Amino acid sequence: MTDQVRVVDVGPRDGLQNEKQHVATATKIALIERLAKAGLTTVEATSFVSPKWVPQMADASEVFSAIQRQAGVRYPVLVPNEQGYRRAREVGVEEIAVFGAASEAFSQKNINASIAESLQRFEPVIAAAKNDAVAVRGYVSTVLGCPYQGAVPVADVVRVAGTLHRMGCYEISLGDTIGVGTPRQARAMLEAVAAEVPMSALAVHFHDTRGQALANVYACLEAGVRVVDASIAGLGGCPYAKGASGNLATEDLVYMLDGLGMNTEINLEALIEIARWINGELQRPASSRLALAGLERVQGLSQA
Amino acid sequence: MTDQVRVVDVGPRDGLQNEKQHVATATKIALIERLAKAGLTTVEATSFVSPKWVPQMADASEVFSAIQRQAGVRYPVLVPNEQGYRRAREVGVEEIAVFGAASEAFSQKNINASIAESLQRFEPVIAAAKNDAVAVRGYVSTVLGCPYQGAVPVADVVRVAGTLHRMGCYEISLGDTIGVGTPRQARAMLEAVAAEVPMSALAVHFHDTRGQALANVYACLEAGVRVVDASIAGLGGCPYAKGASGNLATEDLVYMLDGLGMNTEINLEALIEIARWINGELQRPASSRLALAGLERVQGLSQA
Repeated sequence: MTDQVRVVDVGPRDGLQNEKQHVATATKIALIERLAKAGLTTVEATSFVSPKWVPQMADASEVFSAIQRQAGVRYPVLVPNEQGYRRAREVGVEEIAVFGAASEAFSQKNINASIAESLQRFEPVIAAAKNDAVAVRGYVSTVLGCPYQGAVPVADVVRVAGTLHRMGCYEISLGDTIGVGTPRQARAMLEAVAAEVPMSALAVHFHDTRGQALANVYACLEAGVRVVDASIAGLGGCPYAKGASGNLATEDLVYMLDGLGMNTEINLEALIEIARWINGELQRPASSRLALAGLERVQGLSQA
Repeated sequence: MTDQVRVVDVGPRDGLQNEKQHVATATKIALIERLAKAGLTTVEATSFVSPKWVPQMADASEVFSAIQRQAGVRYPVLVPNEQGYRRAREVGVEEIAVFGAASEAFSQKNINASIAESLQRFEPVIAAAKNDAVAVRGYVSTVLGCPYQGAVPVADVVRVAGTLHRMGCYEISLGDTIGVGTPRQARAMLEAVAAEVPMSALAVHFHDTRGQALANVYACLEAGVRVVDASIAGLGGCPYAKGASGNLATEDLVYMLDGLGMNTEINLEALIEIARWINGELQRPASSRLALAGLERVQGLSQA
């Protein structure tokens, strides 16, 4: 397992959009820039959803315009429709992310549309992106369970992931939205999707709501996935379980990847500093283990 | 991987002894009894170390005398020397645990004796236990790193584990005392020890200080281990990193084992209730993910 893993930090978007308190635009910009500086090659910067839905992302244009983009770093933004796409392009966005649920009940409750309808709505967006040479990343949510319908058949995950891939997404991120999955289930789901979409076009996105995220990542690394989503400082709670933790923390992930001898080109010490800084900015307690423990005792230990 | 896993809850001893505040004797007794009632078949009850070293465990005799022991449940207690052994036997202890470090520096700093000396001191204890038909469990600490010497050669872990096994320990628990290990390293260490001591006589004991515990357990389950230590509610901090988390939470572990289709005969809902209760008693925040998230959204999901 000694090879390259690309970590996608979704903290500035998926993380912050679940934070209740208002976050200053300057803080968002600094967060994105610091992550890129620490070696993250993909930083999900913001979301061009309607500010009515997600007030926290109302400053998307301002944030994206202001960041000093680094060469070799991708800054995807979430785009829900053509209007969002136009707003994104006005400020020079070069990569977008679109999304579909694997659970029919979740799709209906979340965006008031069936899965099929929601994917159809993205067709003109993806067509425009193709025309503009804008890369498109796809998210599939509720891949291991749904807060409304319960179990989600793997076949439904495979179908939605396959559709997004055929529509033109260069990468499909498979998300356990409510953090219910365990390693064998996660691996089986990934392998089923990989029979339809090449493994090299797949990413995994686990929430740590029940502490399973890192074990799930490990099981999926064994199955061959090499792109993993995470959120600096574990930013983002879980809207389905009050007070619970949400995203897997990037620093806990990178600690494991370093230990596995997998190359990420990310500076772990810088990452921990960023996590502690953003926790301070948001006056929230550390939700990653590593932000609490630090690396002080680890130096000099053989890891691989 | 569909088989039986025995979970050893070390919360009442390894967990509570690291709690700064005084814990009432009645609370300790209730904790042990509730864990057994929830289906734990091994509950490490207390420690017969000198109250001068660990004041929290000064009521060891009182605690052990008072618990209503259930048939089929083991209640090992930590014993540091012959005096501790005698105190334990006076109250009817039927299983003890002894310990050795894999790191020479840790042994010297922790108990002011070399590893060899520390093991020698246990010889009369284990001989007495054999004579009394008292079972002996062995702990090896610092198996993946030491706060004083840094890296710990695997050969040292193998040697200490092998010695404890030859001395008469029926099971050896391999402990990552400072929570620095990652899955491949953990698995490689376990497999090296298993070449010397049968896998069926080995247990793993991971601390979650850097979030790696559950991923490490998963990797070791893949390698064949079937006994795992954990601490209800993640009780017990990390004495080597202020404010950091320590033990792996039993409820997070059992959630994973259930999901893997492994049988533990433990009632997970009861476990979460105990975790929330003890957190309330100790007025500490939840340190397990599951105590925060609960199982409400998980019911009805297919796990295996």
